[in-house]
Amino acid sequence: MAPPHGKRTETIVHEQDPFNAETAPADLVASAITPTDAFYSRNHGAMPRVDAVAWALTIEGLVDRPLRLTLADLRDGRFPVRRETATLQCAGNRRRGLIEVREIPGEAPWGPGATGTAVWEGVALADVLDAARPADAASDVAFVGLDRSEEADPPQPFAGSIPLRKARRPEVLLAWGMNGAPLPVAHGAPVRVVVPGFVGARSVKWLDRIELRDRPWDGFFQDVVYRLLPPEAEPGPGAGIPLGEIALNAAILEPQDGREVRAGRTTVRGYAFAGGERTVARVDVSADGGETWVQADLGDDHGRWAWRIWSCPVDLPSGPAELVARAWDSAGASQPERAGPLWNPKGYVNNAWSRVRLDVGCAGAR
Amino acid sequence: MAPPHGKRTETIVHEQDPFNAETAPADLVASAITPTDAFYSRNHGAMPRVDAVAWALTIEGLVDRPLRLTLADLRDGRFPVRRETATLQCAGNRRRGLIEVREIPGEAPWGPGATGTAVWEGVALADVLDAARPADAASDVAFVGLDRSEEADPPQPFAGSIPLRKARRPEVLLAWGMNGAPLPVAHGAPVRVVVPGFVGARSVKWLDRIELRDRPWDGFFQDVVYRLLPPEAEPGPGAGIPLGEIALNAAILEPQDGREVRAGRTTVRGYAFAGGERTVARVDVSADGGETWVQADLGDDHGRWAWRIWSCPVDLPSGPAELVARAWDSAGASQPERAGPLWNPKGYVNNAWSRVRLDVGCAGAR
Repeated sequence: MAPPHGKRTETIVHEQDPFNAETAPADLVASAITPTDAFYSRNHGAMPRVDAVAWALTIEGLVDRPLRLTLADLRDGRFPVRRETATLQCAGNRRRGLIEVREIPGEAPWGPGATGTAVWEGVALADVLDAARPADAASDVAFVGLDRSEEADPPQPFAGSIPLRKARRPEVLLAWGMNGAPLPVAHGAPVRVVVPGFVGARSVKWLDRIELRDRPWDGFFQDVVYRLLPPEAEPGPGAGIPLGEIALNAAILEPQDGREVRAGRTTVRGYAFAGGERTVARVDVSADGGETWVQADLGDDHGRWAWRIWSCPVDLPSGPAELVARAWDSAGASQPERAGPLWNPKGYVNNAWSRVRLDVGCAGAR
Repeated sequence: MAPPHGKRTETIVHEQDPFNAETAPADLVASAITPTDAFYSRNHGAMPRVDAVAWALTIEGLVDRPLRLTLADLRDGRFPVRRETATLQCAGNRRRGLIEVREIPGEAPWGPGATGTAVWEGVALADVLDAARPADAASDVAFVGLDRSEEADPPQPFAGSIPLRKARRPEVLLAWGMNGAPLPVAHGAPVRVVVPGFVGARSVKWLDRIELRDRPWDGFFQDVVYRLLPPEAEPGPGAGIPLGEIALNAAILEPQDGREVRAGRTTVRGYAFAGGERTVARVDVSADGGETWVQADLGDDHGRWAWRIWSCPVDLPSGPAELVARAWDSAGASQPERAGPLWNPKGYVNNAWSRVRLDVGCAGAR
């Protein structure tokens, strides 16, 4: 059950320094908009505390008109203010399911809570780029943060790039607001990038500078990390598929794995997110390990860039049961059945059918 | 083996009237650009023969400036000429794999050849729409053909719509040319729509008129047909997921299923296509039914809207063998393992791993 309003479940902390924590299932499923104080936190270095008045953003590289913009400049009306409800999701979300297949040393065992949805407020990156006038040779837009990572080789700020074709779309924001309040330090104050539909790693926090380039970012966090490798490969510069758009995914959040529940009618709840520009078209739920399926109620639609929080009543006979959920997107694509074939050395993109095993007791007995 | 240049394998005809035929595997795999005379043909009615001089295209509905444009108008220079190499694919491509799971009465058993890639020449639909000035309320762009279908209920022209956001992208063409020659009657002369990344049904042939609307097309071929239904559902107006973007797919074309091949080194060849705006990032091939995998060579890159023709040498021991291929796209998404969970009443979107069963003889013995 969702916690009473205002009473949050503790986040699940995987690491204190740098701080890495995921949202508890009850907080994910309670509302389509994730509470700011429960929102997941994925960091590769210490969180910088930035003086918002002294802060200025540099836009440089392959532009005809390099810019330096303070927060006051961004907010003075020359760029229209935009709000987008968008889901962010870590590429390592649901990694735990891959670790159950085979170990992944050195990577956090994220459950389904390395994702969340917020209402972001800021200006369109596209409008700021228009002011800077990208050169014809520009093909990629890199974002460099003020957080320095000692995990990187060599140590460097967190950074990453997106294709210019995505950067020009109106949904990509330079955001200073989250859920109706100023962006908190933990989520990138004073300004972060929000790239709806892309892996969270591209939504760079504590934004320092934007560099227009004629190729993708070649720093550690794009050239070595956040790449999908074949199982037998070693991570290294340029190896594997650079992650960008998020793949269709879904998770059962309620009831939780291993729980004892009573026989009879139970409501299964979870989220589904299509990633990229796609939308969730259908979610199927099975209460018998995938033999028979029913369609879930998709809940409120918060637009193209947001997940769907779904629910589905099922009848559970007593005994062991396996709940399964799978989503279908607007392209008619669905998810892989098993995590086994998805295993990869860094543990990204586990989008296998979500499975929860239950011990169903007799009705009335507790 | 690919046929010698200029010598085409016969297309595989599923129906003479209306004419429905798929490309033979050898012609698909011989080159990334499918020869025009081998290109698949999917029709719901008789092919109209249109007088190209008398023909004119109407653009109407939610536009501030309705237009009527002859072919000479389209080609007189007011709209820049564009060429796009784009793969078209029928939503029913590879339906045969679903029919093997459970019968699908009344639908053609398409193999992997209801797809092909051509160089299309024409003008950007976006430029023509700019001239017609879509009203603020416009959200969808419908295309109506000159071919009348008696299969439809009631009989009507073939038609379908795409979202305005896609229609405004530069890759969507009003095309009069195919592979460097005028568009043949069989492929929609004088002008067809080409919607790269979307199911072939939206690339309406023998284009008659374009209607800007505030909702998707509600004719038979979008409201009833080309929708992905849950297995237990009945086709009907508005039921199921309306197909749009194509889902990631791949097929083994060589060697073919059931063939006897010699033990030793064999080159496996096929295509992979990511659909939507995604690109193919990797293709894995297994010669042992999915136990072990190697990465295929992806061949020439013809751009975002075209498939990749891949090849992969494998070593086959004698005895029965199962070849398997699966693709990964730029979002790190891969394909479903089995066709069983994909079965649906109209037989669309079979994008399960491609499997070919072989009888491998001793090396040297024939």
